Amino acid sequence: MIVIRSQAEMRQWSREQRARGKTVGLVPTMGALHAGHASLIEASVSRDDTTVVSIFVNPAQFAPHEDYDSYPRTFQSDCETVESLGGAAVYAPTAKAMYGRDYATYIEVERLQEGLCGGTRPHFFRGVATVVTKLFNSVLPDRAYFGQKDGQQVAVIRRMVRDLDFGIEIVALPTVREKDGLALSSRNEYLSPSERARALCISRALFAARDMLEAGERDAGRIVSEVKNVMKDVEIDYAAIVDADELTPVERIEGRVMLAVAAQIGNTRLIDNIQFDPQEARASTQERARSSGA
Amino acid sequence: MIVIRSQAEMRQWSREQRARGKTVGLVPTMGALHAGHASLIEASVSRDDTTVVSIFVNPAQFAPHEDYDSYPRTFQSDCETVESLGGAAVYAPTAKAMYGRDYATYIEVERLQEGLCGGTRPHFFRGVATVVTKLFNSVLPDRAYFGQKDGQQVAVIRRMVRDLDFGIEIVALPTVREKDGLALSSRNEYLSPSERARALCISRALFAARDMLEAGERDAGRIVSEVKNVMKDVEIDYAAIVDADELTPVERIEGRVMLAVAAQIGNTRLIDNIQFDPQEARASTQERARSSGA
Repeated sequence: MIVIRSQAEMRQWSREQRARGKTVGLVPTMGALHAGHASLIEASVSRDDTTVVSIFVNPAQFAPHEDYDSYPRTFQSDCETVESLGGAAVYAPTAKAMYGRDYATYIEVERLQEGLCGGTRPHFFRGVATVVTKLFNSVLPDRAYFGQKDGQQVAVIRRMVRDLDFGIEIVALPTVREKDGLALSSRNEYLSPSERARALCISRALFAARDMLEAGERDAGRIVSEVKNVMKDVEIDYAAIVDADELTPVERIEGRVMLAVAAQIGNTRLIDNIQFDPQEARASTQERARSSGA
Repeated sequence: MIVIRSQAEMRQWSREQRARGKTVGLVPTMGALHAGHASLIEASVSRDDTTVVSIFVNPAQFAPHEDYDSYPRTFQSDCETVESLGGAAVYAPTAKAMYGRDYATYIEVERLQEGLCGGTRPHFFRGVATVVTKLFNSVLPDRAYFGQKDGQQVAVIRRMVRDLDFGIEIVALPTVREKDGLALSSRNEYLSPSERARALCISRALFAARDMLEAGERDAGRIVSEVKNVMKDVEIDYAAIVDADELTPVERIEGRVMLAVAAQIGNTRLIDNIQFDPQEARASTQERARSSGA
């Protein structure tokens, strides 16, 4: 496995792969790799001829008061993880090479970048969209893999890829959770034991909501009330049910939706979400009815 | 020569060229091709293995009150021009395919998009940067050719290509002029004979400024005064001397600069510019001195 540091070297490496007829998969990360990242790397390794894992803590998606400086950096063990999973290259450019002194260009995905996390982190998604574009332009992937845990990010990137004609397939994989339900996140390591215990109410709230949805509840307000009730001991940033593609709030659940929450636990901000599609739910209920009737 | 209508077909065609080891040159145009465009196409044909000319009147760079609907469209004769000059493909997507109903993604090149034409056309350069990104992502060129007549556009595109790690070489070619000095533009055909006569003051003003610069004048204010004086019979939108890369106004001319002007002649808005580098001017003066001394 090789480590590539510059944009030009990355592009040349990928062009060589493609010239040999090989497909390239990209797993964009900020490092501090956990089992969620591993599931993305494994998916790419099983599907693409070569897998590039980018490791770059992107300053453009942090506000000045946020945790850019303290974000966990575990580069050596990350490289070992990528190598052990069969990745071909780690792309780890420097912040200085990525954002020069007179850097000026940003991608805005209007509307989708504004709600949910965009409310408290107004420049977050333009930072994400910009760095992902830069990674795409250097790695030249056929496919790129993202975790559904960052649900708004997936929606923003999908829209950007479609709008800007990138011709790259976006693969979103399910959130990986601890046995007790906590969604894996590099930021979980900020949590003290008592904070971690309190953080469990986030996934508990989402699972309660899923039960209501599967039982046929379609009123978004009632579900969000229950979510907020289960999360009453933490500081909720938002809890909302939105259209899964447009990210606009819905009142009644008729198409595919995302229930997304963000909460502050001490100094740590955590996000989580579930997706739900009433059509799929109806189909699987009918399937169960047919199976039990047979 | 083939005409390609969809993003996916364009990308596939270019990937096939590249798989055969051929380089691809792109000349982005809005059609209504004139000798200025021809010089770009000829440059690409002489340098790249295959040349793609895109013809797309880009709605995202027109404001509602501007001339999107009336912009000259001469598709058949444009295709004949491209074929006669040796172009391999015309890429002409539809506006509907380029900007779907829920289109959301725009590229902003901060600072550089704001002055000069950005003052009166606030969304113009984000429209340009966005469509050029879309063209790049479908045509996958090694090089792209632009006319220096659109000087701010060249600076915006160069910065965007550098910032977003496009790895595409931007070639800017000199403004092509009529014998009497008028810079070629598809919009010149809007001019009545008397308007066309009045429009000549634009290039006259720039040539007068060049004479002052070559004679050693380095005070931007004095040069701009003279430009405005020569252009006193037309409605000046702006006349400014700016740093050639950052497009920030300069008071004294010490590095490479652009003198850019825009004027309204009747219902037609025309732009023009010259570039000047005092270091090059000094070198060529010394060269002349050496030659005459030899």
